[in-house]
Amino acid sequence: MHTMSKRSLFLAGGAALLAAVLPVAARAQAQPAVKNRALFQVTDNDPARWNMILNNMINLKEGVGGEGVEIELVAYGPGILMLKSDSPVKHRIADALKGGVQVNACQNTMNAMKLAPADMQPEIGYVPSGVVEVMKKQQQGWAYIRS
Amino acid sequence: MHTMSKRSLFLAGGAALLAAVLPVAARAQAQPAVKNRALFQVTDNDPARWNMILNNMINLKEGVGGEGVEIELVAYGPGILMLKSDSPVKHRIADALKGGVQVNACQNTMNAMKLAPADMQPEIGYVPSGVVEVMKKQQQGWAYIRS
Amino acid sequence: MHTMSKRSLFLAGGAALLAAVLPVAARAQAQPAVKNRALFQVTDNDPARWNMILNNMINLKEGVGGEGVEIELVAYGPGILMLKSDSPVKHRIADALKGGVQVNACQNTMNAMKLAPADMQPEIGYVPSGVVEVMKKQQQGWAYIRS
Repeated sequence: MHTMSKRSLFLAGGAALLAAVLPVAARAQAQPAVKNRALFQVTDNDPARWNMILNNMINLKEGVGGEGVEIELVAYGPGILMLKSDSPVKHRIADALKGGVQVNACQNTMNAMKLAPADMQPEIGYVPSGVVEVMKKQQQGWAYIRS
Repeated sequence: MHTMSKRSLFLAGGAALLAAVLPVAARAQAQPAVKNRALFQVTDNDPARWNMILNNMINLKEGVGGEGVEIELVAYGPGILMLKSDSPVKHRIADALKGGVQVNACQNTMNAMKLAPADMQPEIGYVPSGVVEVMKKQQQGWAYIRS
Repeated sequence: MHTMSKRSLFLAGGAALLAAVLPVAARAQAQPAVKNRALFQVTDNDPARWNMILNNMINLKEGVGGEGVEIELVAYGPGILMLKSDSPVKHRIADALKGGVQVNACQNTMNAMKLAPADMQPEIGYVPSGVVEVMKKQQQGWAYIRS
């Protein structure tokens, strides 16, 4: 009995240690369920591919059901043109935004293509660099999907 | 001496704790060798690209040698057409299946394209959603290869 | 007080245990900052795509600023042709090499295409298998970017 109570104490000490030493990403791994998070990278200026990606995002959301999923789409390079306010897929992107998808355009690409937010769909967000976003989100444990 | 024997006990307690708290993926990381697991995503309906992917899978298997590797191919979107029973790469896919590759078609795509298992190569498997499969496998520590 | 000093001892024991049990990759995660490392896979023989990737690598480096980032580009399949000494993007690849990017060609592809190092840009490196490299780097915690 005495020994067991000491062990319990050790275990409590160990738990405190784990929480203190492990970074956020590792602590997330130690939770019973992995958080569903997916980053879609889009670099193609191709309505057919965009339609597939927009379908993929709907399928992902429906596929995980009650688990829920956090979805981000980041567009850079030629892919950014599909986020313009006159994009052939603008209605589908508006639907994705309404559905809770975070849609981000790369500001590096915006500058290179001399695009301003006034040229783009009004509800989208911006990241300083699409490629930095892709790396950072993977570091944080997001799944990466290059459609 | 007495103190050291207590420390050994603490260490044993800590090890039990790690096994209890860390999920399967984190425990796998704690083993000396990382398990080789690779998920190939194929969304293109293009025999040349499929031939490259099928070569890649052979190269991956040969490249790891005695370490071994678990390989899964998941096809969705237009890529699924290459898994039909009349596919131009059907013999190579049959070889991959014989070699132990798990080949999965996305049921969402099957439904959207009005395809039934009778239209497909007989030995393949199915997953409810290709994009969910891509996210989940990455969560479980599989490498992701978008060829 | 006495109890607290025992707990401190347990914590020290636990820290030693963590260092002993967790592999290199997991210990890296336990450091305050994640190391920025990105592997670019290039399989397309397309100067426009290569120019985008070469821009991406510059944007990545500038985007992380003082954090620094380790960048590797691995080319295999038809993509390897852009690493030949007469490549239309040879000057930009030379610039990337000067900037510290590790550029690797796949020896499996070299053999299949009957290419020798004498045919290639002189400063590049080689890996036995591009696809093995892609898997291994992800296992080691590198972000994967399929441009």
